[in-house]
Amino acid sequence: MRYTVAEIARALEAEAVGDAGAVVTGLAEPAQAGADDLALASSPKYADTLAAGAAQAALLWEGADWQALGLRAAILPKRPRFAMSRLTTMADPGHGFGNGVHPSASVDPTAKLGDDVTIAAGAVIGPEAEIGAGSIIGPLSFVGWQAVLGPNAFLREHVSIGARVRIGANFICNPGVRIGGDGFSFVTPEKSGVENVRETLGEQGDAGGQPWARIASLGAVVIGDDVEIGTNTAIDSGTIRPTQVGNRTKIDNLVHIGHNCIIGEDNLICGQVGLAGSVTVGNFVVMAGQVGVSDNLSIGNNVVLAAACKVMSSVKDGKVMLGYPANEMKTNLDMYKNTKRLPRILRDVAELKKAVLKSDGSD
Amino acid sequence: MRYTVAEIARALEAEAVGDAGAVVTGLAEPAQAGADDLALASSPKYADTLAAGAAQAALLWEGADWQALGLRAAILPKRPRFAMSRLTTMADPGHGFGNGVHPSASVDPTAKLGDDVTIAAGAVIGPEAEIGAGSIIGPLSFVGWQAVLGPNAFLREHVSIGARVRIGANFICNPGVRIGGDGFSFVTPEKSGVENVRETLGEQGDAGGQPWARIASLGAVVIGDDVEIGTNTAIDSGTIRPTQVGNRTKIDNLVHIGHNCIIGEDNLICGQVGLAGSVTVGNFVVMAGQVGVSDNLSIGNNVVLAAACKVMSSVKDGKVMLGYPANEMKTNLDMYKNTKRLPRILRDVAELKKAVLKSDGSD
Amino acid sequence: MRYTVAEIARALEAEAVGDAGAVVTGLAEPAQAGADDLALASSPKYADTLAAGAAQAALLWEGADWQALGLRAAILPKRPRFAMSRLTTMADPGHGFGNGVHPSASVDPTAKLGDDVTIAAGAVIGPEAEIGAGSIIGPLSFVGWQAVLGPNAFLREHVSIGARVRIGANFICNPGVRIGGDGFSFVTPEKSGVENVRETLGEQGDAGGQPWARIASLGAVVIGDDVEIGTNTAIDSGTIRPTQVGNRTKIDNLVHIGHNCIIGEDNLICGQVGLAGSVTVGNFVVMAGQVGVSDNLSIGNNVVLAAACKVMSSVKDGKVMLGYPANEMKTNLDMYKNTKRLPRILRDVAELKKAVLKSDGSD
Repeated sequence: MRYTVAEIARALEAEAVGDAGAVVTGLAEPAQAGADDLALASSPKYADTLAAGAAQAALLWEGADWQALGLRAAILPKRPRFAMSRLTTMADPGHGFGNGVHPSASVDPTAKLGDDVTIAAGAVIGPEAEIGAGSIIGPLSFVGWQAVLGPNAFLREHVSIGARVRIGANFICNPGVRIGGDGFSFVTPEKSGVENVRETLGEQGDAGGQPWARIASLGAVVIGDDVEIGTNTAIDSGTIRPTQVGNRTKIDNLVHIGHNCIIGEDNLICGQVGLAGSVTVGNFVVMAGQVGVSDNLSIGNNVVLAAACKVMSSVKDGKVMLGYPANEMKTNLDMYKNTKRLPRILRDVAELKKAVLKSDGSD
Repeated sequence: MRYTVAEIARALEAEAVGDAGAVVTGLAEPAQAGADDLALASSPKYADTLAAGAAQAALLWEGADWQALGLRAAILPKRPRFAMSRLTTMADPGHGFGNGVHPSASVDPTAKLGDDVTIAAGAVIGPEAEIGAGSIIGPLSFVGWQAVLGPNAFLREHVSIGARVRIGANFICNPGVRIGGDGFSFVTPEKSGVENVRETLGEQGDAGGQPWARIASLGAVVIGDDVEIGTNTAIDSGTIRPTQVGNRTKIDNLVHIGHNCIIGEDNLICGQVGLAGSVTVGNFVVMAGQVGVSDNLSIGNNVVLAAACKVMSSVKDGKVMLGYPANEMKTNLDMYKNTKRLPRILRDVAELKKAVLKSDGSD
Repeated sequence: MRYTVAEIARALEAEAVGDAGAVVTGLAEPAQAGADDLALASSPKYADTLAAGAAQAALLWEGADWQALGLRAAILPKRPRFAMSRLTTMADPGHGFGNGVHPSASVDPTAKLGDDVTIAAGAVIGPEAEIGAGSIIGPLSFVGWQAVLGPNAFLREHVSIGARVRIGANFICNPGVRIGGDGFSFVTPEKSGVENVRETLGEQGDAGGQPWARIASLGAVVIGDDVEIGTNTAIDSGTIRPTQVGNRTKIDNLVHIGHNCIIGEDNLICGQVGLAGSVTVGNFVVMAGQVGVSDNLSIGNNVVLAAACKVMSSVKDGKVMLGYPANEMKTNLDMYKNTKRLPRILRDVAELKKAVLKSDGSD
């Protein structure tokens, strides 16, 4: 990157102060910043570390006293963390995947490539696949039979897009993502022990000893616009209709989304989350890392599923959940605090028994 | 697909009613069904949605009043969910990986390919590998040195089969599966803090500060017949003898199976399950999503490990387990209910203390 | 392999007894051992199984009565488990990835390969990448733009090393590892509901309904010397500075390491562990399978995070943690035992209420 402070401030819709013509060629944390870097000191707690580096220009917080910090120029955005979105995009050098179709790529003659599409080294494009204009298919990635990618898709290396998967505009896909694996759907000839356990909460009955027959997944996956998916995440195909992911939903690494799930819009799904089959999720939902949701449940709008909670019944709009099994966070924290009070309760009960029943509390 | 209702009913060993000569060309959920689709309305709760679609033929439940539903033809299987296995297989269009060896594939001259084997674009077959007749190796997949695949293997894209891995007949393998990674086996020169923690349940002693030396995995993996493995799942090689997966066991996405595990037959292992090293599992076991099993434990036959439970001691035949640590489901549910009763217990104890000890219960 | 018992004993710095000139050509568990195998019977509990096999030579424990076991020769190391490290390395036949650059590999003309580098079939090396001397890049693996690998790297198949990632000497990388995916970093225009939940422990306030803007990851990943990483593990790039993994740290399969994490030296991180963004980890830390650590926490030196614990606040040096939320193991085990005592407490309180308050304890 190579920008003046004024150019960056304009892009961030932020105030530039000092020598706005100063040129910066990189971003850095304050203590590591060189003389040509824009130091990122977004709150007063980072101000002290500026002196340890050599930055002459910095991104600071609104109202910061940039002159007292010894800077030549500064940018003062209203919400520095939000400014990081535009700023890091401006500074991103990309991945150097080249232009056009690399000679080592294998593109089926029936595939349709839009204008200005890059197919990097070793990538494979299957028959009748369609790649939207401006898309970049990373090295050793695969787009399957009749799969459709909208404009401006960016696939990193080793991505799998299965047959008949359809994806909207501006898709961002990290290494090793798998869209359209076969759903994990198996059935026994007669009612299974697991079906009995669910009904009785614990008893399998006499259903054991049956082999599992496979149900094939014919429904593929449909993904909306502006979706981003993290490294080695897997989204399985639906059985008859597609598994769905709505517009602007962001999914982190190593997430498992089972067959037939319908995920809404504007969700944030963090690392190693697992959604079993046929889960429905509303809009503006946040799931923290390692959350699990059992099959066939419904998660409402504006729900927060906090760290590693295991959801075993459907969740209504606006709830904040925690625990295994997941409860409302306040309930879960109360249960935890009460469990921590058990030693005192045990002492109190022993004392009471001694006083009342003349027992010493031992079994 | 293109079948008459009679042909499908015959394949499903189910009753056909109405105009059994009617032709269907696809499967659909009732509300989305077009005039040529077979609508899947497997229980009375889906009956209402048939009217929203245009289907003239449907798969219904035994004894359904198909004429009252306005259909021209219907199929009435005894267990509609089980009928889905055969039905979806009949309708599966496959992945279009082509036939024969794709010119962009790399097959070592010492590899042995059976009759009618497909090696798709970009795939790599290593030296002395053997691929059984009728197998399909998907795009960009890899089969290593001296690995052996039985007849009719179907590997999707980006699959890794490591050196010396041996797999039986009819293997189905989803994208990004890794068979035969190196086991996670490390050892310290002297007894480690972790060894001490296990013995004392909490104390490391003075064993800290030792580096970890690697134990290589020489044993590879042996997999039986009719096994299916889900997307991005990893099964590590054994140290001296192979890690084993028995016949007809089905494994879902992002599962971790450590080195030296011996998994029995007819198991169902759901998404993101993790088995540490040297776990032994019987037959007809079901593990729900995100279950974890500590190393060197034994899981009996016909066990159900329910959602996200963490197994920290061996489990006997037929048990149904839940919780962290895993207990029998009934015990776990009782512990949970009792914890929910703690606010009442706290109130009762405070009241008793007041009555008996003239204390107000505050610390 | 083909060694005399004396050669192996010398390499293991262990005592050889009996016919030290005896030749062994493989390693085996005692019961499966053939006449030319070295049987591995590292403790008295395995001694009985020797008779079931045909081994004439064995690795035993210090002071073992090898003659009474009917052997012709034996090796008696001080710590047999530690001896396995050197022994399995000696016996490892490798993966047969060949020598030199395979004709199907794609190496950018601006990449720099050290002496004696192997680039296996289908691998892709990007522009300005540097591969250290003696390295082996496995089939279908990818090394990105300006990535640097030190000497003697060994990458298995389907590995991704992203742009600008820097890795030290003797790196071992299992199939499907992804280094340098984009960090999961998103921000809302105004304060988000999740930021409110963290402050209030449960209340989102009125912050719902905002879309997520992406923060790009510019910092790549820096990995030290002698690091090993397991199958399908993902380590994300840092935002401005690199995510870091220290010397000699070993990471297992399907692990998620978020952006900006700083992992120290000599750690052991087991399968399916997840570290959210900006976690700092000291040295000589052990994390068991399925452990989770919330973002921005600090884990001290010599910490043990036991099976599947979920760490929700920072952990000081030397602690041993267990549970969800993670507590010191002793505290967690006490809480568990106390919860198991609840039925007795309930009975006691009911009895006391009856005696004192003339109540029968029902609500």
